[in-house]
Amino acid sequence: MATEAERIAAANRSYAEGFTGAGAVRPARHLAVVACMDSRMDIFAMLGLEVGDAHVIRNAGGIVTDDVIRSLTLSQRALGTREIVLVHHTDCGLLGVSDDDFAAELEADTGAVPRWRAGGFEDAHADVAESIRRLGATPFLLHRDRVTGFVYDVDTGRLLPVDGD
Amino acid sequence: MATEAERIAAANRSYAEGFTGAGAVRPARHLAVVACMDSRMDIFAMLGLEVGDAHVIRNAGGIVTDDVIRSLTLSQRALGTREIVLVHHTDCGLLGVSDDDFAAELEADTGAVPRWRAGGFEDAHADVAESIRRLGATPFLLHRDRVTGFVYDVDTGRLLPVDGD
Repeated sequence: MATEAERIAAANRSYAEGFTGAGAVRPARHLAVVACMDSRMDIFAMLGLEVGDAHVIRNAGGIVTDDVIRSLTLSQRALGTREIVLVHHTDCGLLGVSDDDFAAELEADTGAVPRWRAGGFEDAHADVAESIRRLGATPFLLHRDRVTGFVYDVDTGRLLPVDGD
Repeated sequence: MATEAERIAAANRSYAEGFTGAGAVRPARHLAVVACMDSRMDIFAMLGLEVGDAHVIRNAGGIVTDDVIRSLTLSQRALGTREIVLVHHTDCGLLGVSDDDFAAELEADTGAVPRWRAGGFEDAHADVAESIRRLGATPFLLHRDRVTGFVYDVDTGRLLPVDGD
């Protein structure tokens, strides 16, 4: 077991000592959150979620990829969620990243060409709006009428609603 | 703004009042966690993470998809992480799901064929081992020597290490 994994295993032993059980597999608030992987977003704490409340889907950027569609489709069709909340944030590592440059660097370094694009963007609010559009364009979700987008400000801890939702 | 989003916005106002700042974009513990989206896993609390410590990537199953490879590649190459922790769990919604049946149901209901597979599996420990193998097979990561897999027991709150890491 690697170093940080050992720290995690030790911290988890304390967590489990105070654990009182977690309930059912279906999210109690019928909610799925799609957020960036950024280390500064403790999603449960900053959104006021309790254990068992909501699915949490996270990737680089919090952008709506095929894998997010897969997860949301399972969330809604197999596990009963009906509402989606998107959370992007300020100071994102993908701000200003050029997908072409990133792909060229990867190919130069590894000799392989990725099947995916990095997902860089120029404006967090516009990128949330783009993600909302992608959700609207997929045929697989059962519920697309309750989708809300936010940008999280990593300096203040505040969620800012995105216009157009 | 939809109902649960309003609750989230209200809860976030309380969170922001006690917020003391979050630090830099690069994760302090040089760690990325890949976990299932399950609502019963409050990742920061159950792994003992602080704000700013680690990237958190989550999808249905916590399985290693192309989008997870994209996120981990950015995490390591753009943001300096070096270690990966995988967390699947007991009582997962994907346990026993047939990818073929799920795809057939989607096509029957929507007329469209998804580009992705559901990602069903039969055994959480074996699925973690499969995810570790997939990480080993991608050329894009800089660091693949510190990968640790766990299965989280949703009834006890405990992490169980997966053999073979």
